[in-house]
Amino acid sequence: MSGGASAGSPVEDFDAVDLIHTKRDRGELSTAQIDWLVDAYTRGYVGDEQMAAMTMAIFLNGMSRTEIRDLTMAMIASGERMSFDGLGKPTTDKHSTGGVGDKITLPLMPLVAVFGVAVPQLSGRGLGHTGGTLDKLESIPGWRANLSNEEMFAQLRDVGGVICAAGSGLAPADGKLYSLRDITGTVESIPLIASSIMSKKIAEGTGALVLDVKFGSGAFLKDIEESRELARTMVALGQDAGVATSALLTNMNVPLGLAIGNANEVRESVEVLGGGGPADITELTVALAREMLALAGKTDVDVEAALQDGRAMDKWREVIRAQGGDPDAALPVAKETHTVYADRDGVLVQQDALPFGIAAWRLGAGRARKGDPVQHSAGVDLHAKPGDTVTKGQPLFTLSADEPARFPRALESVDGAWRIGDEGDEVLTGGPLIADRVGG
Amino acid sequence: MSGGASAGSPVEDFDAVDLIHTKRDRGELSTAQIDWLVDAYTRGYVGDEQMAAMTMAIFLNGMSRTEIRDLTMAMIASGERMSFDGLGKPTTDKHSTGGVGDKITLPLMPLVAVFGVAVPQLSGRGLGHTGGTLDKLESIPGWRANLSNEEMFAQLRDVGGVICAAGSGLAPADGKLYSLRDITGTVESIPLIASSIMSKKIAEGTGALVLDVKFGSGAFLKDIEESRELARTMVALGQDAGVATSALLTNMNVPLGLAIGNANEVRESVEVLGGGGPADITELTVALAREMLALAGKTDVDVEAALQDGRAMDKWREVIRAQGGDPDAALPVAKETHTVYADRDGVLVQQDALPFGIAAWRLGAGRARKGDPVQHSAGVDLHAKPGDTVTKGQPLFTLSADEPARFPRALESVDGAWRIGDEGDEVLTGGPLIADRVGG
Repeated sequence: MSGGASAGSPVEDFDAVDLIHTKRDRGELSTAQIDWLVDAYTRGYVGDEQMAAMTMAIFLNGMSRTEIRDLTMAMIASGERMSFDGLGKPTTDKHSTGGVGDKITLPLMPLVAVFGVAVPQLSGRGLGHTGGTLDKLESIPGWRANLSNEEMFAQLRDVGGVICAAGSGLAPADGKLYSLRDITGTVESIPLIASSIMSKKIAEGTGALVLDVKFGSGAFLKDIEESRELARTMVALGQDAGVATSALLTNMNVPLGLAIGNANEVRESVEVLGGGGPADITELTVALAREMLALAGKTDVDVEAALQDGRAMDKWREVIRAQGGDPDAALPVAKETHTVYADRDGVLVQQDALPFGIAAWRLGAGRARKGDPVQHSAGVDLHAKPGDTVTKGQPLFTLSADEPARFPRALESVDGAWRIGDEGDEVLTGGPLIADRVGG
Repeated sequence: MSGGASAGSPVEDFDAVDLIHTKRDRGELSTAQIDWLVDAYTRGYVGDEQMAAMTMAIFLNGMSRTEIRDLTMAMIASGERMSFDGLGKPTTDKHSTGGVGDKITLPLMPLVAVFGVAVPQLSGRGLGHTGGTLDKLESIPGWRANLSNEEMFAQLRDVGGVICAAGSGLAPADGKLYSLRDITGTVESIPLIASSIMSKKIAEGTGALVLDVKFGSGAFLKDIEESRELARTMVALGQDAGVATSALLTNMNVPLGLAIGNANEVRESVEVLGGGGPADITELTVALAREMLALAGKTDVDVEAALQDGRAMDKWREVIRAQGGDPDAALPVAKETHTVYADRDGVLVQQDALPFGIAAWRLGAGRARKGDPVQHSAGVDLHAKPGDTVTKGQPLFTLSADEPARFPRALESVDGAWRIGDEGDEVLTGGPLIADRVGG
């Protein structure tokens, strides 16, 4: 049974089963209860089986805005909280909820850093069909993801941008809880996603944050209204914690760009940094850069010019070198490829994100279990995007893998996921790339 | 992802997260999926955290009748299945969902055995405020709960009745799952209660089974309609498995009898076996005995006569002796008592079961954690029942404990749980003791 609710006391003692009953029966947990729960779970006094029951109850019964904020703050309090106050320049960060072919962080970070705003991109590794930024960058010979806090701070000061692994000291409760959710079927919950993302980003100490909240077949949340609710929840959490936060709702029904994998996504990012590359990647990179710069107080800048005149590319090379990478080194290439060709003339009217993401994952670009290695050269390269006119015999997409035995299951996953129609048929993209914006 | 559904194959391989998603999203699990889940959980391949998420999803989203039957059969298949076929006489058993002062098994088992029907009462220990039959009987010097299967079989053959600990070989999956539910807040779920009870009872091998399904403040399920649903579910499970099964829905708003504890409940049971004791205990004992005998084919017997003419008492003494107990030995008495007296003349109009059950538990009659000892002499003795006329200064109830420090919290739990009103005031009993019957 609960004791009295003296505000802020960390020693107050609750019973885990009482708290589970409260959430199970659609009640609301108090700030003191959530503080206790997160602390007790981090220390191991509340077990994984109790937290698993609690997260399923949260998944099915939801949480109030107050509970979500309390959960976020409790997870932040479970670890260290960084500060970039001593940097002498504003900081701005971006977080994407994850998608297929989403390599936007790679061109975005140097593009924003060009304008004197520091970009501390603390990133993760992929799990399942959504790739991880660190996995992609590790395709570059010599590049290393793990920096000390001192190295990260120095690089932000001297170079202006960094993409590195989030230290385990940030919101360790979230790390533990995320691993648990992953194996207990409670990932796709707005309160749990929002508190997980925002606890790490607020603890990281960024001054501004832009959220790329995906919706559609290749996203965590399929429905745009659910994504809007997630975006609103996260923007409110950021603003409450003093972080200037906004969100773009972006369409993840179709793969982003033409490359899905690791090395091939780096290659495509470099094309965009050189002023080329697929139009959708450039469009989203520029839109997110404008948001990030605006939140950091820079509204009067020509973002697109920096892609065209080589400044973004120069910054990219500088950042890669600062982390030991060779921007001129050849990227790994797979031993085997398998190309699928158009069987008729017409228009590509369908290309679903999720099946192509799963294909890349099955080819070895992603991992099934935490800690597994990824194959940097594996993945899918698209040769046409929805709306493109195609002619019989032209290549539609190419699968790459080191082991040809991986092709059949990858091909199986894209079976029925693309279609060539006639001129005038509806092209199934699910609407524009950037559907909406949430924020002050 | 699931493999093909070849019926009955035990080696079929599923993914625990897929199964959790199915139940989380209100889908139905197949027979093969449930078989796999229970087997994999019993072997430890599916972890407690995954099963905790699954049980919370079952708690909140329910299970179909088919799923409940599959779960029951899978838990039976996790262990041994006994048979009393070689006994040469019918078998009949009773199970109560648990209540306050529920010692009915003690007078009931010998009463039924008098009529040549074997009664294999495989029982448990108490947890929380509901007492355990074995705990009560262990008040009797020398009596032992643990019998081998051979000893149990011999006693059923030679004496006709036995109350002993259910071996861990019966439905081990249920044992593991029940312990998990207890710490993860998923106890009060009809599919999980029904499959838990019925897996053990069907595995036990009884030919007939009467269920005493409680409702009211002192029961697992407060609402009679929920209890009716539980009863219907369990009766169907028993009948499907070839066990003649019926259920009585009985009122647990008021303590059963006058004794709540262990030794004092044995004392009261012996009074009933001698033809005396509280009217409610006798009424329920006789009603359940008639049900048990009828299901075993004995409809033309005078149950009450066996209480009056000493046959039930003789059988009791025989059974207690067969398990090493001395039916004539003095039962333990507590070192301290604390009596509460009527503060006015009037009628006792309220006496809530749950608070008095909690008081007995706090006095030491029950255990907070599995494996804790119980104090056999601790408990509550009521001196009046709802509807009784009382006079100022007469004792209302007496608390017994070895440590007087236990009295204040026990008194706190019954504060407001009883009330003396005026002649003509409504007496709050929640209706008749036996509210309904479910079964063929």
